[in-house]
Amino acid sequence: MNTQRLDATFAALADPTRRAILARLAAGEASVYELAEPFAMSQPAISRHLKVLERAGLISTGQDAQRRPRKLEAAPLAEANEWLEAYRQFWEARFSRLDALLETMKARKSKPRGRKR
Amino acid sequence: MNTQRLDATFAALADPTRRAILARLAAGEASVYELAEPFAMSQPAISRHLKVLERAGLISTGQDAQRRPRKLEAAPLAEANEWLEAYRQFWEARFSRLDALLETMKARKSKPRGRKR
Repeated sequence: MNTQRLDATFAALADPTRRAILARLAAGEASVYELAEPFAMSQPAISRHLKVLERAGLISTGQDAQRRPRKLEAAPLAEANEWLEAYRQFWEARFSRLDALLETMKARKSKPRGRKR
Repeated sequence: MNTQRLDATFAALADPTRRAILARLAAGEASVYELAEPFAMSQPAISRHLKVLERAGLISTGQDAQRRPRKLEAAPLAEANEWLEAYRQFWEARFSRLDALLETMKARKSKPRGRKR
């Protein structure tokens, strides 16, 4: 797996505006104007975020020379996901320990030991 | 999903040394000394990386006051994975288009049109 690509992908994802832009593009291509609209942000500020996403390979620019629509490129997300999947056993083990703890607590609550009602 | 936690998790993962530290901790707890060993890096430099990982909730410090072993905390990785899973349909669509393209190319190669052998 390409280390520098993973660096760029995770860095690009470490920002709520950039994640929101990707979520918007998941619904379809959009121009910079359309992408800037829902945010209280200038077009230059949005353009800077788009550059970070583009360098990470997370978006590309479509062929319409006037509108220059951006679209989602999901391949780097697949690589990031693959990296995370290696740790699945750890969070699943943690969640099953929490489940077991909750079961124990519920069992104790339903059998109060010697307390008056 | 907690936006600031996702920010911190993705930022922490955007560095190859920090990802390597997590990979090491996946094999078991380790002291700062043990973590610094495989890297050509001073203990203070490793400690700075550990601080970033700790603030993101990706590691915790064990109870042995002398050794202060660090251990992996996988819950933030589960959240990052959950965020990425929302995009699975996009990379799977892309990969199946690539598969279809490869099939077409293979089919063409095995049936050369009118070329001499």
